[in-house]
Amino acid sequence: MRFRLTLAHLGAPFAGWQRQPNAPTVQATLEEALAKLAGIPVATVAAGRTDAGVHARGQVVHLDLDRPLPAAALVHGLNHHLPASVRILAAAPATDGFHARYSATAREYRYRIVRARVVDPFRAPFAWQLDGSLALDAIRSATALLVGRHDFAAFALAGGAHRTSVRTLLHAAWEEDDDELALRLVGDGFLRGMVRGLVGTLIEVGQGRREPASIAALLAGEARAAAGPTAPAHGLCLERVCYPAALGGPEWEAGARPDRRSGALC
Amino acid sequence: MRFRLTLAHLGAPFAGWQRQPNAPTVQATLEEALAKLAGIPVATVAAGRTDAGVHARGQVVHLDLDRPLPAAALVHGLNHHLPASVRILAAAPATDGFHARYSATAREYRYRIVRARVVDPFRAPFAWQLDGSLALDAIRSATALLVGRHDFAAFALAGGAHRTSVRTLLHAAWEEDDDELALRLVGDGFLRGMVRGLVGTLIEVGQGRREPASIAALLAGEARAAAGPTAPAHGLCLERVCYPAALGGPEWEAGARPDRRSGALC
Repeated sequence: MRFRLTLAHLGAPFAGWQRQPNAPTVQATLEEALAKLAGIPVATVAAGRTDAGVHARGQVVHLDLDRPLPAAALVHGLNHHLPASVRILAAAPATDGFHARYSATAREYRYRIVRARVVDPFRAPFAWQLDGSLALDAIRSATALLVGRHDFAAFALAGGAHRTSVRTLLHAAWEEDDDELALRLVGDGFLRGMVRGLVGTLIEVGQGRREPASIAALLAGEARAAAGPTAPAHGLCLERVCYPAALGGPEWEAGARPDRRSGALC
Repeated sequence: MRFRLTLAHLGAPFAGWQRQPNAPTVQATLEEALAKLAGIPVATVAAGRTDAGVHARGQVVHLDLDRPLPAAALVHGLNHHLPASVRILAAAPATDGFHARYSATAREYRYRIVRARVVDPFRAPFAWQLDGSLALDAIRSATALLVGRHDFAAFALAGGAHRTSVRTLLHAAWEEDDDELALRLVGDGFLRGMVRGLVGTLIEVGQGRREPASIAALLAGEARAAAGPTAPAHGLCLERVCYPAALGGPEWEAGARPDRRSGALC
């Protein structure tokens, strides 16, 4: 019986989602809690294989259990065994054919920047601290060029094991709130390090060190070295994953207004 | 030369403000950073002697230096030596006669509650998780009885070393936002554990285990055992400290609207 979990976790304690030797990962932590609950090893598959230090508010995971279990027992049983840095927010039996990674139609990421010389300890773990002026109009023009179907190889880190570097960006917009700036990206998929490569490059545009139009050349096949640096991991959060309505949704809607608390678009 | 600092810190890493043997405190951490910067030991005095686990967004501290130092050098020099869990947000030369504790006219505390069975790891360290129904109208009636000049001994923990247990509560109101509930209290001073004793008692009212009118008897001299339990420390935050305008302010104004980001009333 396949279950679908929605999971939130802090980035700092983990070397990313994917299990690896000699480093604490979200997958290993979750599978350890699952083994305690189920009494046998249980494998998990996540929608987004987040990098070390990246946070998640709405990671989606599937797993198969031999025997049926009430969804509430799965939520509270797992949370009992998990550290406080990982929480199962929801669980439900998966629709037939549901696969957390392959069924996903859209992933939504948010990258937070605080523009201040001093950042309080409540926000510092969740935002890139960036002092100095930024030309927001230039950043916005450059960002608009990213939307659509493109080869994003110039923004990706090596090691992602992707078959193709072509992805469709469905939505890309900056939100400003007092001294905070956040980039919300929704795409059908993201290459390894792609969001942070995009942010590092767009910030170069804002700092006047790169023309907005240079984005077009990067999308036309330039090398990684031609793009900007990879922005720090702790500013990034996987906010939400979308699925077709037939597989339980939530679907992504281009015109949908962000949810008040999470700000998520789907 | 006397300086005034505004400081934010996380609660979890510290056994409260006040220096004590064999436990990490905010005062000891700050004075260690100051000694590195000044080259000699420097004592500090804080407006609010917060308890272990209580957060602060706007603690105010004074200290005396032998030689003048630019305020910016004090901010950035101290932040360089402080752990990320403590940040100096501002520094300024103090007005003649300024004393962080004795000059303060009002302190503002905020206590956050999340009403949910599962709380994500981003909010859990900053709010008391409380599942089940609460009668908000009853809580609000009880809260209104607290405003004014009263003997709050029934709500305080032992060991505060206060000369009197009479304090004036200037403002007490609950704010509701989705699944969050927060009590904002402004008073001329607070006894040790008083905010958390008030919260624990008001929640008993909300749970139907105590009449709103019982607050009057508690304020009329009942013992600590007659009030409710002390709510957990991690829900509490010292938001702001107010001073007379002649000492640099900010003054507390009864009708002032909360600041958008910090929500502070002064």
